Amino acid sequence: MYNPYVLDHKTPTTKDFLDTTVFDQSEILDMIKVSTTVREFIKSGGTLETLFHKNLAMLFEQKSTRTRVSFEVGMEQLGGHALNLAPGAIQLGAHETIGDTAKVLSRMCDIIMARVNHHESIMALAAESTVPVINGMSDYNHPTQELGDIITILDHLPEGKPWNETKIVFVGDCTQVCASLMMITTKMGMNFIQYGPPSKWLGDDFLKIGRANNQLYGGSVHVTDNPAYLEGADFIYTDVWYGLYDKETPKEVYMREFYPTYQVNAELMAATGNPNAKFMHCLPANRNEEVTDDVLDGPNSIAWDQAENRLTAQRGILLYFSKVAQEALDTIKRQKEDKHA
Amino acid sequence: MYNPYVLDHKTPTTKDFLDTTVFDQSEILDMIKVSTTVREFIKSGGTLETLFHKNLAMLFEQKSTRTRVSFEVGMEQLGGHALNLAPGAIQLGAHETIGDTAKVLSRMCDIIMARVNHHESIMALAAESTVPVINGMSDYNHPTQELGDIITILDHLPEGKPWNETKIVFVGDCTQVCASLMMITTKMGMNFIQYGPPSKWLGDDFLKIGRANNQLYGGSVHVTDNPAYLEGADFIYTDVWYGLYDKETPKEVYMREFYPTYQVNAELMAATGNPNAKFMHCLPANRNEEVTDDVLDGPNSIAWDQAENRLTAQRGILLYFSKVAQEALDTIKRQKEDKHA
Amino acid sequence: MYNPYVLDHKTPTTKDFLDTTVFDQSEILDMIKVSTTVREFIKSGGTLETLFHKNLAMLFEQKSTRTRVSFEVGMEQLGGHALNLAPGAIQLGAHETIGDTAKVLSRMCDIIMARVNHHESIMALAAESTVPVINGMSDYNHPTQELGDIITILDHLPEGKPWNETKIVFVGDCTQVCASLMMITTKMGMNFIQYGPPSKWLGDDFLKIGRANNQLYGGSVHVTDNPAYLEGADFIYTDVWYGLYDKETPKEVYMREFYPTYQVNAELMAATGNPNAKFMHCLPANRNEEVTDDVLDGPNSIAWDQAENRLTAQRGILLYFSKVAQEALDTIKRQKEDKHA
Repeated sequence: MYNPYVLDHKTPTTKDFLDTTVFDQSEILDMIKVSTTVREFIKSGGTLETLFHKNLAMLFEQKSTRTRVSFEVGMEQLGGHALNLAPGAIQLGAHETIGDTAKVLSRMCDIIMARVNHHESIMALAAESTVPVINGMSDYNHPTQELGDIITILDHLPEGKPWNETKIVFVGDCTQVCASLMMITTKMGMNFIQYGPPSKWLGDDFLKIGRANNQLYGGSVHVTDNPAYLEGADFIYTDVWYGLYDKETPKEVYMREFYPTYQVNAELMAATGNPNAKFMHCLPANRNEEVTDDVLDGPNSIAWDQAENRLTAQRGILLYFSKVAQEALDTIKRQKEDKHA
Repeated sequence: MYNPYVLDHKTPTTKDFLDTTVFDQSEILDMIKVSTTVREFIKSGGTLETLFHKNLAMLFEQKSTRTRVSFEVGMEQLGGHALNLAPGAIQLGAHETIGDTAKVLSRMCDIIMARVNHHESIMALAAESTVPVINGMSDYNHPTQELGDIITILDHLPEGKPWNETKIVFVGDCTQVCASLMMITTKMGMNFIQYGPPSKWLGDDFLKIGRANNQLYGGSVHVTDNPAYLEGADFIYTDVWYGLYDKETPKEVYMREFYPTYQVNAELMAATGNPNAKFMHCLPANRNEEVTDDVLDGPNSIAWDQAENRLTAQRGILLYFSKVAQEALDTIKRQKEDKHA
Repeated sequence: MYNPYVLDHKTPTTKDFLDTTVFDQSEILDMIKVSTTVREFIKSGGTLETLFHKNLAMLFEQKSTRTRVSFEVGMEQLGGHALNLAPGAIQLGAHETIGDTAKVLSRMCDIIMARVNHHESIMALAAESTVPVINGMSDYNHPTQELGDIITILDHLPEGKPWNETKIVFVGDCTQVCASLMMITTKMGMNFIQYGPPSKWLGDDFLKIGRANNQLYGGSVHVTDNPAYLEGADFIYTDVWYGLYDKETPKEVYMREFYPTYQVNAELMAATGNPNAKFMHCLPANRNEEVTDDVLDGPNSIAWDQAENRLTAQRGILLYFSKVAQEALDTIKRQKEDKHA
């Protein structure tokens, strides 16, 4: 029976949070439970000190707004502290090997979060660290975004619809955010579609992950350039069409491929046939390229809730991988009972 | 009747602190009251946790020492935390619109402070934020400097002289600090003079603000190149002659215009005819350009008190615009009573 | 009689921690006592708030991982806060004089730590600051590294050997870390040898310091290129052969001078004739240049303990120079007694 104060998995099966594929659905549900229970508690004025005197090292090989702010605020709200090791402050693998950095940070900090250029780097960090390592985005995936996004989707489920009948369409390029959305939605047994030009479809390696999830949890996964697949979507999600950092491909090339067909505008939203279809974006957005102002600022946009749920997810992940998630839930339960007593 | 523990305006009339012109004198007096009461309390060993678990996002489009350190220490001393989003860490209006950044930060943080290149940016931030926004200096004004400066002036009033008879002379270029000093001193009904070359006088738009203040609160405002106006000054204030960051105008050009006439040296201080005239500088100083060592390091220099009062002002502003200023004063009053009981 | 909870010097004789040569052995022993007593307490789950609401300004003219992370975590673990003023954020001596920066920071912060390009800068900072200044490495010395290293050496003393009979061999270039190791080991009356090419030996100015220590405390100091001096070493220590930051000398030149003679490898370790000889490195390491993987990762490597003791030392120094070291020890003693009562 569902109890918001009891986790099935009181401790994570792996030390690190690098890739959601290694967790089964029930573990993801536990992370969601911690995240949303803590959110409700803090929003209602409660305070937690579960990570008192715990220090998070945040390593950034790329600039970041949402990931940086959400982790730093998240640690603070849980009683701990986050150190911002900005791009250039530590050059992973430059002055010393990644393994040496991992060993040193493990001796001084309690948990490490890194945004890396190459997924190999986060794997090397995790392998050599004795403390938990959280992947704050690599060129392969973006698992903390996944957790925030799935919380946002569950917050905005169509009324009366079971979550595993939900249909999510990602429009555009197979970025790591697209891949991540596919991984987490199929893990939940939802129906995932990527609608984009064939040259930008998720590759077979990714699709295999989705299909394995379909076997276990139901749901489906498709890549298509057929707009008929938009029909019945509950969520339309998009991301920028060209990288923010390593712009090997010039903007013009991307625009030619995506514009105007894959722009999320009123017409595309209407093609869902669902006036309640929600719009999501991981942000930052290139307004009036991949999404028009009227959609991003419209009543069906949940992009800002989604941004806020980055913070919701980080708190949950920090507690869960610090192995104190159940302790935090116990504290919340006790404080609520005291209040009502 | 004056009571240091009671504010006239328990909550600000506007969400943001962008420009002191929108506040009337009594509101500025309230901000001063909070600032100086908290200063006295903390200096005597008291501790406040009024901003416990509150997070301030500090956005810097330009480097800063005093503003950065005073806000970060101020938040810490009030029980909260400040996030340093350094120049380049977030490029306002680059990867996403300022409005989008404002909306996202509003979902994660409790208050925003920004130092911006263009005043339009701070206005856009404030317009789209749901949390209070503090202007940490723009190309137009520097209101947190204003509050610190007016506190410093009140701390060092000539004995027995009512504040509204005080005479303040700004020597040099019409920087945003000069404009700000004019705005806050005339708001207090004081007599303000800018002494500098005609091409560097405050423009009519600024002088109108000063004259409107004269109508409401008494006092006067003048711009002049006549050294006779130095006579009777209680405070001599100066700032660097050329920008620290965007040096469109070469140093040589500025030196030709200002040096030696507008250098604050012993001779210029003597021209006040007031051996107790105080010297002020917002810092950083280009020593022996706009001010000589003997004046900046002399017994009449209050530039270091002024620097410390940046911190005094930031604490007051943070409390006031977080709408917990009265709560902080109540706490201080209660703790002082407990101590004496 | 030795009592871990009582210091001989309850307050430092000088305001600042710039150079260990100005302290006598008993003062260094006090710093070690604070550092290790606090370490044991925190490792056993104790928490200290001795630096509650104290703010440390960390100024970096050069990048840093270990010094930055250890000071920031150290402050946090003692209840305080550290501000990271990264390279470029404040340009010491650029926009304003170092003295002006020192005066301003003294008005806002409780303690200053700086890593500087030139030792003159840290001396100027200390001269003009009214708060304690800690040298986080200059081109001359690295005293916080010294304290961490001597703690590591004492932790790993050969069984039954009095510390003043210990033999430490530094292999390689006369970096500031080499000089610092010489200064602290001779201060403790140990036997110090630098084994390297004659052109890279510590100069007479440094050796005089070591010899003065020998007079006071016993022990010895030698520089040599004779490998016979490796015989009987208890500790072998090395550092990179060429600077991490200002690489005036090309790598090739250094390699020619040091490689392979001065590489710490299994053969060099064997030349000590001591199978228990420990290996130390201040890190970061250029693996397979100055040290081979098998030594750095081998069972006799204490380089990671050494990294952790950076944090051990910073906490001790922060408490000692904040003049609250005895207060912290009293708190620890009281808490331990309460626990056992």
